[in-house]
Amino acid sequence: MRPSIVLFGDSITEEAFGEGGWGASLANHYSRSADVVLRGYSGYNTRWAARVAGRAVASIASPVSAVTVFFGANDAALPDRACALQHVPLAEYKDNLRAIFALLKKRWPSVVVILITPPPVDEDGRLRNECRYPYAHDFSGLPERTNAAAAAYARACVEVARQWGLRAIDIWSRMQRFPGWEKSFLRDGLHLTPRGNRVLFEEVVFALKDANLSLEALPADLPLFSDIDPDNPVKSFEDQE
Amino acid sequence: MRPSIVLFGDSITEEAFGEGGWGASLANHYSRSADVVLRGYSGYNTRWAARVAGRAVASIASPVSAVTVFFGANDAALPDRACALQHVPLAEYKDNLRAIFALLKKRWPSVVVILITPPPVDEDGRLRNECRYPYAHDFSGLPERTNAAAAAYARACVEVARQWGLRAIDIWSRMQRFPGWEKSFLRDGLHLTPRGNRVLFEEVVFALKDANLSLEALPADLPLFSDIDPDNPVKSFEDQE
Repeated sequence: MRPSIVLFGDSITEEAFGEGGWGASLANHYSRSADVVLRGYSGYNTRWAARVAGRAVASIASPVSAVTVFFGANDAALPDRACALQHVPLAEYKDNLRAIFALLKKRWPSVVVILITPPPVDEDGRLRNECRYPYAHDFSGLPERTNAAAAAYARACVEVARQWGLRAIDIWSRMQRFPGWEKSFLRDGLHLTPRGNRVLFEEVVFALKDANLSLEALPADLPLFSDIDPDNPVKSFEDQE
Repeated sequence: MRPSIVLFGDSITEEAFGEGGWGASLANHYSRSADVVLRGYSGYNTRWAARVAGRAVASIASPVSAVTVFFGANDAALPDRACALQHVPLAEYKDNLRAIFALLKKRWPSVVVILITPPPVDEDGRLRNECRYPYAHDFSGLPERTNAAAAAYARACVEVARQWGLRAIDIWSRMQRFPGWEKSFLRDGLHLTPRGNRVLFEEVVFALKDANLSLEALPADLPLFSDIDPDNPVKSFEDQE
């Protein structure tokens, strides 16, 4: 039985199978050993995610080895600017992450939950980005998200992970170690470019490896072509029917 | 419950989540409405695939709406050249496709099965490609696959589909309608470039639409952000818990 790796998150997860996407790269990486299941909900914050988490994963019947929980980019939208609708206070963000974790753990007791912090915000990139939300035109000239706010949510996410003994990927810090992260990793100040996707993919692969879910640790589904005996190929399949 | 779309095939399926891959594009297309499940087995022909089909799909517990069955590129390897091991005679290829279809239909009676023909072969591209199979060094200077052989398997695939009332994607014919298909769509004379992947993706989307599995026909999983009432967002989730 192939295990599944579930990606639960907001738009950065929903678009993870787009060009150069971290989800597609994961599915490619585990092409013979695990299913990568997409559960990304654009625009969602943890308040809404916590409410729907049970339903979001209800149709996943296979054994789930790991879930990435990647929220916070919308929670961190400022409460007095254009995307106020999405804002969730910091304390509630932490409670919601705990509730999501508890729900996943109840459903799959041995599941590895990996929390991912919100990415950094490039405020200049946000301002250049034409707002896609029909009701959110804001003429203040101020971005609806700031990197300082994202920082607070990233720290909170790491703290929840530490308290509960979970793995965390601090993508907020990781990305900012690269000079030029603003335009290199973020296409609109928030969502990932193909290069940004690559950084996240690497971090997820590393976290999965750390959780004993590396390629080497997972058995390949059915015999690899290179292991098939050329003199008696059908023999390789005799115990697979 | 999200339905699943299963991709069952050889290496062209196994690598469908690589750069620009048709599988990743499908998963992106259906990101909120269906799961795309990868069951690609590099090097496999229909003889081996028919033996393992039951096991390959055993772990898929969700409702499966459609399966693409994409074999023939290996069956069509010539019996007297470097990849003879993979060769399957034409009549057996057809029997194996029927057996795979019967197995899928028994497991999911209302499943839509889409047969995909092998792609065309660019013999020049094959000869330039360093053979990756350790035991298959062939000093004849002749390619192990020819476009004429692929044509016969493509026709047989279309014929099986017609006889059994299945949808078929004749990617062998479709690709050759484009001048320069040899290098534009095939990276090594057989496997798809990102542009070749795009052609196949379009055909699969069209076939799924024809089977009433278009984006419009499938409900979105959980409320879309654009449908959430900004004055009372939580209301949208009240019946989703």
